[in-house]
Amino acid sequence: MAPKSNTIKSGNVSFNGPEGQEDMPYLLTPGPLTTSSSVKLAMLADWGSRDIEFRQLVANIRRKLLHIAGVSKETGHECVLMQGSGTFSIEAALASFCPGESDKKTLVVINGAYGHRAVKILEHLKRPYMTLEFDEETPVNADKLAATLKENEDISVVFVVHCETTTGVMNPLKDICKVCKDHGKTIYVDAMSSFGAIPANMAELEIDILVSSANKCIEGVPGFGYVLCRRDLLEDSKGKSHSISLDLYDQWQAMEKTAQFRFTPPTHALVAFHQALVEHEAEGSTRARGKRYQKNCDTLLKGMRKQGFETLLDDDVSGPIIQTFLSPADLKFDFDTFYEALRAHGFAIYPGKLTKRDSFRIGTIGKLNPQVFDRLLKAITMVLQDMGVTSTSPSN
Amino acid sequence: MAPKSNTIKSGNVSFNGPEGQEDMPYLLTPGPLTTSSSVKLAMLADWGSRDIEFRQLVANIRRKLLHIAGVSKETGHECVLMQGSGTFSIEAALASFCPGESDKKTLVVINGAYGHRAVKILEHLKRPYMTLEFDEETPVNADKLAATLKENEDISVVFVVHCETTTGVMNPLKDICKVCKDHGKTIYVDAMSSFGAIPANMAELEIDILVSSANKCIEGVPGFGYVLCRRDLLEDSKGKSHSISLDLYDQWQAMEKTAQFRFTPPTHALVAFHQALVEHEAEGSTRARGKRYQKNCDTLLKGMRKQGFETLLDDDVSGPIIQTFLSPADLKFDFDTFYEALRAHGFAIYPGKLTKRDSFRIGTIGKLNPQVFDRLLKAITMVLQDMGVTSTSPSN
Repeated sequence: MAPKSNTIKSGNVSFNGPEGQEDMPYLLTPGPLTTSSSVKLAMLADWGSRDIEFRQLVANIRRKLLHIAGVSKETGHECVLMQGSGTFSIEAALASFCPGESDKKTLVVINGAYGHRAVKILEHLKRPYMTLEFDEETPVNADKLAATLKENEDISVVFVVHCETTTGVMNPLKDICKVCKDHGKTIYVDAMSSFGAIPANMAELEIDILVSSANKCIEGVPGFGYVLCRRDLLEDSKGKSHSISLDLYDQWQAMEKTAQFRFTPPTHALVAFHQALVEHEAEGSTRARGKRYQKNCDTLLKGMRKQGFETLLDDDVSGPIIQTFLSPADLKFDFDTFYEALRAHGFAIYPGKLTKRDSFRIGTIGKLNPQVFDRLLKAITMVLQDMGVTSTSPSN
Repeated sequence: MAPKSNTIKSGNVSFNGPEGQEDMPYLLTPGPLTTSSSVKLAMLADWGSRDIEFRQLVANIRRKLLHIAGVSKETGHECVLMQGSGTFSIEAALASFCPGESDKKTLVVINGAYGHRAVKILEHLKRPYMTLEFDEETPVNADKLAATLKENEDISVVFVVHCETTTGVMNPLKDICKVCKDHGKTIYVDAMSSFGAIPANMAELEIDILVSSANKCIEGVPGFGYVLCRRDLLEDSKGKSHSISLDLYDQWQAMEKTAQFRFTPPTHALVAFHQALVEHEAEGSTRARGKRYQKNCDTLLKGMRKQGFETLLDDDVSGPIIQTFLSPADLKFDFDTFYEALRAHGFAIYPGKLTKRDSFRIGTIGKLNPQVFDRLLKAITMVLQDMGVTSTSPSN
């Protein structure tokens, strides 16, 4: 089946889809995102999951991911791939590395939905935890974290989200890691939406566990996630998982012994991801990718502000991953209409997730460059005119 | 990345890959398997997982799967898709539908590795169970099942594998279901490798729960599985899952309320699967697909027997999914050499899984027709000659 034309594409609207799939919209979301044609073309073959070529490809993926994180087998680190969405990997790693019945507990640092999700999982797994919560628009404060760690010596693991896509806020990873290490804690970083675009050197920052997924800044297609971690932690995790499918230790052991997954892997997604890693390296790795996303972001912010939109966050705390815009107070502005109209122009934006204020989000990751955002800005101008929105200010 | 040429392709060997991917081998395995070019082409676009078109596609998949099983929402049945391999869905459904702390238990009927896997999961989940075990080459005996159910009134759920790919043996689903219903038990069928090729009408056979996955007889690519079941069982399963990611009830609720997955779905695998369902219907649904597989199987068995190979199973109990051949006793026969040589001809076969005898397996499912097996048979003749194997008899 060729990608279906969108029925909403009509009238004098110009549709702007990505190269090679002109009738599909650009995905301006935190993933699944727009990938390159070559990444998708890699899926045009059926690989045998037990064949030597495929096993080599899986080994390459594991090695390359460790390399991006500044570590390797030689530094005592391992990479375990896990089928399913990123949350499956998050849950697998929480089960493997967070204390169970003991006098220790996990500290979950929260400033958005993904911190809350970790709490939900720990709660369900009956693992002891406490939380340190910040406002959604506020980065994690390392001093407050230090105070909490000082007061609670029974904390053994600190779970923190690098970029909270709830708002797009970037948490100060370096400061957080330093505080954790000063207090001798194990650091678990949810780097889902940042890994491959924002540096997170596990060796330098002494990060113990880092989790991300295929369909984020490496620009692969969805189907699996990955856990990068210290080998000794994995060794200690034997028997700790609540699940057979999500058992990281067993998954790791199978990958080491047979270079295979225990259960059928998403072969096409893995082959696509391998190609995405090759393209990540060719672009200039994490630094270059982050730079491109920053340019996307700068173009978007400048253009949106010119049109009177206000962002939720200050520029010094909003990362280059996703931006939150406050919805115009103008009664003629309606998000669903705005969304569908932009969709008809070839751009899929993202709803807001704030609890207190109306907002929407626009992602700047994926196979996108500033020219895409120039076109998006023009489309936004046209759509607002069509809607009869005269003021984009969030307050009356 | 275009599919890589195989380095082992050399000399005067003729490589026979599938149309559109001539340098890749035919996958003669129980999955991932060879899919049609059109199924793979459907993956050449990035769909937004929250877009209306994608949500409609997911709804279509759920409806079509119920239809293949002879049920629908109107008959009180539901379809829940679950990210990951088929085992993720098996585990999710075991957790949701098998009794926990109570005076009831699950009966796992075993005649191969997949029965044992269900036991491993129940054991890990601390769910009470007992087993009824048969020899790997023997189909489940319905009379013995009846006797077990009579003697053990505390059994509430019976777990049985339709086609055990350990050997390829087909279990007599109709008889098994009748016995279970006569005793008022809930039936959980692992139809992983049979659904879409061997009829399993949930309404007629009164099957309560049926699980399969994308990369089997529907001929999609791997990335998710699905659970078809009675709605009232799902309703009763709230809060029973051991896992957040694998919680079927929550997954179902999200799909009903928002037509979305809770966590990122494997969008490309889903779009490919939708196309695979269209092709399944166009071929003539389950009956026609089973017929084609049977022809593949007949061609394979006839040709292999002509070359002196013996099958593990009698033809009346071996299904058309995968065949187990006994390894020749001839000392010049070595499976790894045999495998790699056939691989160089463009055919990936499958190792044996028997505990007691040396064997290998050849799958007959996937986008394959009898002509592929004619070519395979010729390749086998050549490879045996090259290896110097003079007798293919399994006994000296």
